[in-house]
Order: sequence, then structure tokens, then C-alpha cells
Amino acid sequence: MRTDPAATPNLADLQAPLQPRLAQVAQEIRRIVEADFPLISEVNSHLFRMQGKLFRPTLLLLADEATGGPERRAVILAAIVELIHLATLVHDDSVDHSVLRRGMPTINSLFSHQISVIMGDYLYSRAVIELVRLDDLAPLRVMSRVTNEMTVGEMRQLLAHDRLSFDEDAYDLLIRAKTASLLSGACEVGAIGAPDAQRAALARFGDALGMVFQIVDDVLDYTEDEAMTGKPSGLDLREHKVTLPLIAALPRMSEAGRRQVASLMHAEEPDAAQVARVIALVGEAGGLEYARDRAQRWAAQADTELDHLPPSPSRELLRSSVAYALERRR
Amino acid sequence: MRTDPAATPNLADLQAPLQPRLAQVAQEIRRIVEADFPLISEVNSHLFRMQGKLFRPTLLLLADEATGGPERRAVILAAIVELIHLATLVHDDSVDHSVLRRGMPTINSLFSHQISVIMGDYLYSRAVIELVRLDDLAPLRVMSRVTNEMTVGEMRQLLAHDRLSFDEDAYDLLIRAKTASLLSGACEVGAIGAPDAQRAALARFGDALGMVFQIVDDVLDYTEDEAMTGKPSGLDLREHKVTLPLIAALPRMSEAGRRQVASLMHAEEPDAAQVARVIALVGEAGGLEYARDRAQRWAAQADTELDHLPPSPSRELLRSSVAYALERRR
Repeated sequence: MRTDPAATPNLADLQAPLQPRLAQVAQEIRRIVEADFPLISEVNSHLFRMQGKLFRPTLLLLADEATGGPERRAVILAAIVELIHLATLVHDDSVDHSVLRRGMPTINSLFSHQISVIMGDYLYSRAVIELVRLDDLAPLRVMSRVTNEMTVGEMRQLLAHDRLSFDEDAYDLLIRAKTASLLSGACEVGAIGAPDAQRAALARFGDALGMVFQIVDDVLDYTEDEAMTGKPSGLDLREHKVTLPLIAALPRMSEAGRRQVASLMHAEEPDAAQVARVIALVGEAGGLEYARDRAQRWAAQADTELDHLPPSPSRELLRSSVAYALERRR
Repeated sequence: MRTDPAATPNLADLQAPLQPRLAQVAQEIRRIVEADFPLISEVNSHLFRMQGKLFRPTLLLLADEATGGPERRAVILAAIVELIHLATLVHDDSVDHSVLRRGMPTINSLFSHQISVIMGDYLYSRAVIELVRLDDLAPLRVMSRVTNEMTVGEMRQLLAHDRLSFDEDAYDLLIRAKTASLLSGACEVGAIGAPDAQRAALARFGDALGMVFQIVDDVLDYTEDEAMTGKPSGLDLREHKVTLPLIAALPRMSEAGRRQVASLMHAEEPDAAQVARVIALVGEAGGLEYARDRAQRWAAQADTELDHLPPSPSRELLRSSVAYALERRR
């Protein structure tokens, strides 16, 4: 499934034409979350240092430019979408007791669990204030629905622990709510002023792209060597998270193989050997191949949706963003 | 300061004329939070069982009726305000690791910390969706600001622990953000269609009433005997929360008294004798008297604001709500 690495678009290439606007997005984020309360400012500074790749703002700005933009308020909407993403990360890390995110200590580990809960609420309520300031109910309608879907996704995530009965339909519902909904929302509000057909196509595009993004994320957990250990992290397995590679592999495993998986799920802290064995079993049973194939199908779906847009360089960059999501190594 | 108990209005009397609408509010709350996800439904059922006194919806409906209502959407707004209140309680209990709320187990104790964080987000995002459905940016503007203020209040609360330097100005900022903001918001959106002067007066009324409400709450923690022990709970002291009675008492205590307070604040789990001693010291130094006097002044302020409204039975019930907030015993 992998294409020639030289042809694989990287995010920096995708973002190059957007650089001035992405810089504005980063500025707007700082403006929106600014507080005259020292503890909040301190947490904010830390959040800025762990700033991510701005993938959602990138999609939003491309959707804007592919449908008649640049529109002035797209930059603000992009900042709002990134803030909502940040708010959910802060709460997710707290819910998962995560210690690191993008190689940086999480808010819950650096400050406290309490501060994470409050800070997530703070960021989200600031995002809503900013949406209201745009004086248009349309983006509010999209983003409030998306945020609610994401909370349901988080609930589904809790139920995906330790459950070997967790099946592909439940997995699809989970990742659609947890990941695809916000990517879909970002693409949709990027096209908020566009004709309905284009806006709906971009919402579906973002949904399909989100499915690609999360499935690939879950595959990478099984395949990508960590810098420290030179082995796949298997973090999901260590945390007892059941994802598509395992779901697909289980019915094709031997009874003995399934017992190994069950024993990992029962181990409070699975050891490295256990994790490595299950990773190998999932690979041998074709779980990774199956998951990559599913990602590929969603990528084709996303690609098709773009045909509803008029041809433009931005549309082609959206196409490249699908290839990026599919081929990325981390 | 206490008036004749027979003259003290109780909440049931205040609410009697509103009963049909309050029943609708309870129904609307159920409709808004409904989910086709079993775990969420289960948490919801528990939340309904621990349903509070609907004080905020009561104020909102009275504000509505005192300014030309009943308006149809006031019932929905009242449900939204109660939901936002519920969402913050769920997160607060999780932040505070509280085990009981209104005599019922909290969501974090009954389910888990994770579920509390997600469920608070779920309730709040549902409230925002419902606000957006009203197709009017005005109540959204008020409620998004209020919700953000409440998160800042929660941050301030974290800093009010273990700090004998925590002063009255900081306390005022804290309780205004944590408590008064939502009562003010409830009164303001109840009058959302009223002339600006009435709406502004009701916002100020709610703010002053909220200050009364929280100061009295903090006094009751020092004065009201618990059913089980027959002694004041002193819960705030046990949790090292510095509130107005202590702030007012500290400068008037002897050096020995202050040392006792400091030793309680340093004790990981202060014992009953320590708590009882500090409660007595605060009383002797006039801390309770001072706090009651502050509550009384805010009550007078709230009362004055009502003069901006046309005379009506609802306006008089708003007046009684101030007396209720001031005189209540729990």
C-alpha cells in the first residue's frame, strides 16, 4: 500500500502556501485564551510550547480557499477549532492520566488533575465566547454538535478498554465521534459561506479524512519504532485499548493466540515481551493489512468528495492532505 | 440579624406559583440530555435522582414574569441554566474528590473520575446546542461569558486553599465568579426580551443575590449543626478552604489563636477537636458577625435593584428570594 516515499506529501509542504494565515491563527489563539489571572497564563504558556501541527486549522483554511475564500473570519474559526481540539486534549490526558503528549509533560502531570479539568473548561468556554462574537449562528451550530459528539466518543473510548468483544462497528462509531467529527467540523466551517452542496461535500470529506487519520494512528501504534527502544510502542495495547488491527486479527487467530491476547488484557501492566508477542500475532493474522485497507477505502471516499468542488490549487492540497494522513509515519 | 422564623420565606412558598412551569423545566432538562448511549443514560438517571432545588430556574422564571413574561422560551432557558449548573457541579465534585452531594453519592464516587470529566463536558455541550437552537445570540452571549467566569472562579478556588493571606478582595472575586455569575446570568436571560434598563437591573440583582447566597453558605458551614454529629460540619475548614468568616476573624485573633488556625491548615486531616476550636475562635473574633453583616449589605443592594422593575407579584417574590437566601438554615 505504501507509495514512493519521495511522493508522500509532508505536512510542511501542504502548509507552505498557508504560512502567513497559520501564523495569524497562532496569534488569534493567544488572544482568545489570554487571561489576567496568573495561574491561567502559566498553563497557557505551557500549552503554547506543546503546540501541535495545526492540522485542523490547515484543513479549515484550505476548505475556505477551495470554496471562494480567503474569507477574513476563517482565521478566527481556525483558531477556535484548534482551541476546541486543545480543550479536548487537556481533558483526555486527564481522563487517561497521560504523562506525556508530543514529548512534553501534560497539564495534569505538570500542574494537577484539578487544573486540567478546569483549564479544559476554560479553553472550551473561551472558544464558545469567540464563536458568539462572530455574530453568526451557523458555525456555532456545527461546532456545538461536534463538541457534543466528541464527548460521546470519549464515553465510547472508556468502553473500548479490556473488551475483546469490541467490534468494528463499535470502533467505527468511536473514531467517528472522537476524531472524524472535529475534522469534519473544521472542513465544514471552512466552507460556511459556500453553497450547501460544497459545504456538505466538505463535511463528508472531513469525516472520511478523519477516519483515515485515526485508523492510521492506530496502525502506527503497532508498527512505528520508538526512538528509545527501537520497537513499536504498543501503547494502546499496554493501556488495554482495543483498536482496528486487533479487532480484525482476533477472528483469524488460533485459540492459543487469542489466549495470549486475553492474558495481556488481564495483566495490570503487560510486560514488553507480552506486548511484542501480541503485536506479532496481530501482524501474522493480517490485522494491519486489514486496517490499512480500510484506511485506503476511506481515503478514496474522501478523494471522491473533492470532485464536488471547483478545481483549484487548494482543492489539490486537500487531496494531498488525504495522502499525508494515509502515508504519514507518525 | 435573624428575623422572626415565621416570617422567613421558604423556597417552597416562593416556588408555589411557578409549579407548572418548574415541572416543565424538569421535563425539558430530561429531553435535552437524552442520549441513545446506555452509559450516558445511566449517569443521567443518577443526576435526576440527585436533582436540586431548582433555585436558578426559579429566579429565571420570576425575572421573566417580572418583566412582561411568561415568555415561552423562558422554560427552555431555565432548563439550560440548570444544566450548566449541573455540569459545573459534576466537574467540581471531580476536582474536589467529593464523595457526597445533597446526601447522594457523586458521579465521581459512583462511576469514576473519568466519567465525571466526560459527563460534565457532555452536559455543557448539550446546553450549548440547546442555546443555539433558540436562534438568538443574546442569551448565548450572556451564558458563554458566565460559563467562562465560572471556570476562572474554580481556578481562584484552588488558590484559596491553605492561604491565610487570602483576603476579602480575593474572596469577593472568587465568589462573584464561582456563584454570583450564574445567578446573575439566570436573572439576566430571564429578562432577555425586556428593556435594557430592566435587564441590567436584574443582572445586578442576581449578582448581589449570588453574593448573599455564597456568603451565607460559607457562614452556615460554621454554624449549622449536622444531623449526625450535632455539631457544625466545618467542612470548609477540614478541606482547608479559607472563607469570609475566617478572613474577617484572623486580624482580630490573638497570636495564639492564629497559630491554632495555621496548625489546622498544616494538618493533612484536621481532627474534630481542631476544627471545633477554630470554629469557636472565629466566632469569638467576630468573624461570623462580620460575614452576616456583609451578606445583609448585599441583600439590601439586591433589594434596591428591584426598584428598577415595575411593581408586580413576581417582583415581590424576587424580594422574598433575597430574604430566603439570607435567612435559610441550609
